[in-house]
Parts: sequence; structure tokens; C-alpha cells
Amino acid sequence: MTFKNLSDIQEREIIPGYLARFIHSEKMTLAYWVIKSNSLLPEHSHKHEQVTVIISGKFELKVGNETKVLVKGDTAIIPSFVKHSGKSLTNCKIIDFFNPKREDYL
Amino acid sequence: MTFKNLSDIQEREIIPGYLARFIHSEKMTLAYWVIKSNSLLPEHSHKHEQVTVIISGKFELKVGNETKVLVKGDTAIIPSFVKHSGKSLTNCKIIDFFNPKREDYL
Repeated sequence: MTFKNLSDIQEREIIPGYLARFIHSEKMTLAYWVIKSNSLLPEHSHKHEQVTVIISGKFELKVGNETKVLVKGDTAIIPSFVKHSGKSLTNCKIIDFFNPKREDYL
Repeated sequence: MTFKNLSDIQEREIIPGYLARFIHSEKMTLAYWVIKSNSLLPEHSHKHEQVTVIISGKFELKVGNETKVLVKGDTAIIPSFVKHSGKSLTNCKIIDFFNPKREDYL
């Protein structure tokens, strides 16, 4: 399917406070996150390379040994297998892209 | 560099009316487009798989033989080597993701 609106996709709460909608192409996954304020993203890592874009809100992200409070327009590159964690300081909307596809989110 | 704000990246007018800021990871390119109303995207194709997300505005996109007027929250998946073209019906903000990286936009 070529065209799809994010609002037509069923939201899934992947971890507490983290509601996701996914779009999968052959080699990438888009994750559109609606995140409740003060929700913890536990430290984790994955083989997938990740690029994050903050659409709204404030999100404290730790990537490897670097920590930054991200706001609208901020981006982060998370290489394969690099540990990352975070916390939403407000309600947030965030887009992540992954390569390869997140088979675990199909 | 892990963190970067889109506003810190130099805008480039790739084709008339299409201003882009690029973020490159190892295997993906994020393109953040600010597009002037009534600007034409000529038909083209590329080896890179593309996923498009409309942030604001109305954009008429043709992918293969399908055409749709995209609005906020709409997405499109453009497989490798599939011809696509379009026109901005208003001022638009659009995010594209590409895999592999767009070496031509480095």
C-alpha cells in the first residue's frame, strides 16, 4: 500500500506511556510516537540504526555517553548496537526511522 | 555527531521551490523539506527506497500510477526505482527518509 495516514493506524502502547504507530517499507520502519510526560525509556540497544526527530515536546535522550534535552527540530543518530535511554520531560511527539525494518514491531 | 537541530543545518534549494536540510546516518538520509506553494517535482526515480511523511500543507504526489493529495499525517512508501512526481498545492513541510544513504546529497 503506497499511501497511509498515521491516524488510520492502530496505536500500540509498546512500553508504559509510549504509544506507537508503525509504517514498514521493505528496508525501513517509521515509528510515530505519542509519549506521555515523565515516561521512562529503559536503556536498550538493537542492531537497527535509528534516526530520531522531535516533532514536539521535550525529551531527555542519552545515546552512549552523551545526554541532551531534545526539543522541536532536534535530531539524533543512534548507530547499530549503541545503548540508549531517555525520559519524556513533557508530552512528546517523536518520529523514529530504523534500518533495517523492525521485524519485532510488525 | 549524535545530536543536531534541523535549524542549524544550511538549507539548500535542490530544485526550484524545494529547500532541503539533510541528516545522514550510516545507512539512511533524512531530508527535511520546506516547499513553496505550486512548485513542481519532476518525475524521477532512484535506487533508494523512500518513506515520506507530510508535516504540514497539501502535496499532490504520484507514485507509479497512483496519485493522492497528501495532508498532515499522510505517508507514502516509494520502493526502489519506482517513478514519482508531484506538486505542492500549498506551502509544505515534508520529511523524507531514504535507504541507502543519498550519496548525491552529501
